[in-house]
Amino acid sequence: MTMTDTLETIHDLVQRSDLTTLAKFAAEAPRPQISELLDRLPPVDAAVVFRLLPKDTSIDVFERLEPAAQADLVTELAEAEVVGVFEALDPDDVVGLLDELPAKVTKRLLQTLSPRQRTATAPILGYPQGSIGRKMSPEYLIARPDELVQTVLARTQRDEAQYETIYTIPVVDHSRTLVGILSLRELMRAEGTDLVGSVMNTPVSAAAYDSDEDAARRCLDGGLLALPVVDREDRLVGLLTIDDAIRIIRAAEDEDQARAGGTEPLRRTYLLTPVRQIARARAPWLLVLAVSAILTVQVLELYEATLAEVIALALFIPLLTGTGGNAGAQAATTLTRALAMNELGTRDIGRVALKEVRTGFTLGLVLGSLGFVIASLVYELPIGLVIGLTLLAVCTMAATVGGLMPIIAKACRVDPAVFSTPFISTFCDATGLIIYFTIARAILGI
Amino acid sequence: MTMTDTLETIHDLVQRSDLTTLAKFAAEAPRPQISELLDRLPPVDAAVVFRLLPKDTSIDVFERLEPAAQADLVTELAEAEVVGVFEALDPDDVVGLLDELPAKVTKRLLQTLSPRQRTATAPILGYPQGSIGRKMSPEYLIARPDELVQTVLARTQRDEAQYETIYTIPVVDHSRTLVGILSLRELMRAEGTDLVGSVMNTPVSAAAYDSDEDAARRCLDGGLLALPVVDREDRLVGLLTIDDAIRIIRAAEDEDQARAGGTEPLRRTYLLTPVRQIARARAPWLLVLAVSAILTVQVLELYEATLAEVIALALFIPLLTGTGGNAGAQAATTLTRALAMNELGTRDIGRVALKEVRTGFTLGLVLGSLGFVIASLVYELPIGLVIGLTLLAVCTMAATVGGLMPIIAKACRVDPAVFSTPFISTFCDATGLIIYFTIARAILGI
Repeated sequence: MTMTDTLETIHDLVQRSDLTTLAKFAAEAPRPQISELLDRLPPVDAAVVFRLLPKDTSIDVFERLEPAAQADLVTELAEAEVVGVFEALDPDDVVGLLDELPAKVTKRLLQTLSPRQRTATAPILGYPQGSIGRKMSPEYLIARPDELVQTVLARTQRDEAQYETIYTIPVVDHSRTLVGILSLRELMRAEGTDLVGSVMNTPVSAAAYDSDEDAARRCLDGGLLALPVVDREDRLVGLLTIDDAIRIIRAAEDEDQARAGGTEPLRRTYLLTPVRQIARARAPWLLVLAVSAILTVQVLELYEATLAEVIALALFIPLLTGTGGNAGAQAATTLTRALAMNELGTRDIGRVALKEVRTGFTLGLVLGSLGFVIASLVYELPIGLVIGLTLLAVCTMAATVGGLMPIIAKACRVDPAVFSTPFISTFCDATGLIIYFTIARAILGI
Repeated sequence: MTMTDTLETIHDLVQRSDLTTLAKFAAEAPRPQISELLDRLPPVDAAVVFRLLPKDTSIDVFERLEPAAQADLVTELAEAEVVGVFEALDPDDVVGLLDELPAKVTKRLLQTLSPRQRTATAPILGYPQGSIGRKMSPEYLIARPDELVQTVLARTQRDEAQYETIYTIPVVDHSRTLVGILSLRELMRAEGTDLVGSVMNTPVSAAAYDSDEDAARRCLDGGLLALPVVDREDRLVGLLTIDDAIRIIRAAEDEDQARAGGTEPLRRTYLLTPVRQIARARAPWLLVLAVSAILTVQVLELYEATLAEVIALALFIPLLTGTGGNAGAQAATTLTRALAMNELGTRDIGRVALKEVRTGFTLGLVLGSLGFVIASLVYELPIGLVIGLTLLAVCTMAATVGGLMPIIAKACRVDPAVFSTPFISTFCDATGLIIYFTIARAILGI
């Protein structure tokens, strides 16, 4: 294939957005050929090809470019036309097709953009939706280990207006690898003639691919005013400041709390949200739950004959399903929170199951005894026995299901809060009814 | 009454912890007599009398003391015996009997104590449980408006080890009144020869009596690294740092989330909490809810005859109560969160009621139509009509009750989260059943 043919083929692939073929070509072409291509291709095509290179190749190719060509390429990467090519990609393909950009390119790319443009350009970075790579700030101060403390202090004072924060200063070596961290306070405490390397601390950092919530929590849990974000080679690509971390956690908790109550979070404050929008946030969940509740109707149909025979059994239905729902909601709430706080993970499922079976059984013993005594006195002994045993069984079942659901959801990569309170209530309603009528038939001999 | 008699009477009142009488005496005695008494009374009695003085008097009396006597008094105030006298007080009496300490005394008192002692001494300050006055740090840097920027910078660098934070510097005048605030960054940006007063900003602050949660939220919402805390005369008494604010909000949210799920928050992480303790956190709520659910049994008893006649009505009980519970939980979740975020207050109760009636009605229309169609097709038209109308009524009722409960709870000074999800479910269950059978009797003509 001649060079002209190649240029045309590439242009054609870009036009048709056939990035898979293009990525394969980019991965296989020898580096010198890539460099030549980048020189000759129209700017948009060149930027797309460059973005599809494996990371190693792109570092190498970028370093070989003239400074002016480097600048052009970075500018081109941020152009709407190029971003558009990648925006159309399926999120799963993004991860497969787009390797990390070299840290140097990421930094320069982000720095040329306003915060609003930065959000629009996020797809080009290849960091998936919800990752901290999309939320980090590119405006941070850095220091090198071989600098004097007074040099860094003077530079901080001189350039402070450029940075989002000056209270946390990452320390990087010549290859931009994060090697330490310093607070402004420690810098002020040190002697001016100390080397940065001798007073810096071991850094805590997040990877750009980490979820924004995990990174934000690490920042807050560590009592840090800012958390450095690094790429896969530990090269510094951004900084997460505490106020952004607070914003991320607040949004996540808004969502968790809303979903725990069976609704989607509102985008504006309650009083400013029109009724139609509030109803729209609640309707899907309410419908899903109502449709799953049809299950309870079907379960009861199975036992219609039993019900007709002992109508008193109907009286306890809301009490029993309600108690099961509450016991399940309690367990789900505790576990959802524990998962959100990273207190435990999917690997602990066995321990959680054991713990919830025992907790549910304990609660069931208390409620069951009480139910047995009251129902025996008010109605008769067999009814008391049915109610007591059902409460024991339902509490044990509900606590176990409620405790495990959030963990299973997490294992399936679904938001654990989705499977919380109302969903578990509905599930426990149906299961509880089966338990109830099975016990009732056995004891009452129907 | 001779001086000796007075001394004896006071000693007797302190021994009997009759602080009401003592406070009345302290409020009425002329200032010179008080000064003389403080000189002559045994240290414990003197400290108790001093603490019971109205603020104006205590400022005046304290200023007249010799520096050595001031120091003795401050030390004595922190002694276990003196703290013990006030610790026994009913929280309501604390507010009535203990005026604020002069800001100067508060500062000196807090500074003589370790953080652990500080918590133990909290009652003496008179700031109620849950107020930010009990959580603020007394270790903060200050500047005066007539100081040079370079003087403050030099002092910051020299004394930084003493303070919890050096990134936020409150500015106070000669009477300790908060007049401005400066960040270290702004201080570094200013010319060394500028006056602090010419570069400082208008301060955002919290009052020491404010709830710790409100103060913490103001700190986080404002994107502040620290929030000054002032007394009633706007005199600086403490500083709330962002990491303490985060800790306060996290504890409050742990509690809110736990209560929304009908359980008390665990004091340790889930995996480290023994089963007995988890069960104990859940049992009270589960019992309260189960006992209130007995209401549903009683409601159903009223309609036992109706049930016996049309047994099909029993089939829909869990579906209808479940949907009502879910609709109520949705509204309660949204409103509890909105209250916690200070988006609205008790004065908005009318607007919330109107909004929830309309939202509930909208949701009821959607679910009711669906229920009508399905139930009419599967069973018969009258049953479909009963189910459809009940869903409409139950959704409207539940959303309204669920939305108003948290606001009513707040108006009664009860944690809104207490009246949330499971409580509302139980309430809506009983009400929903009454609605259901009323509609059924009317339509089916039973």
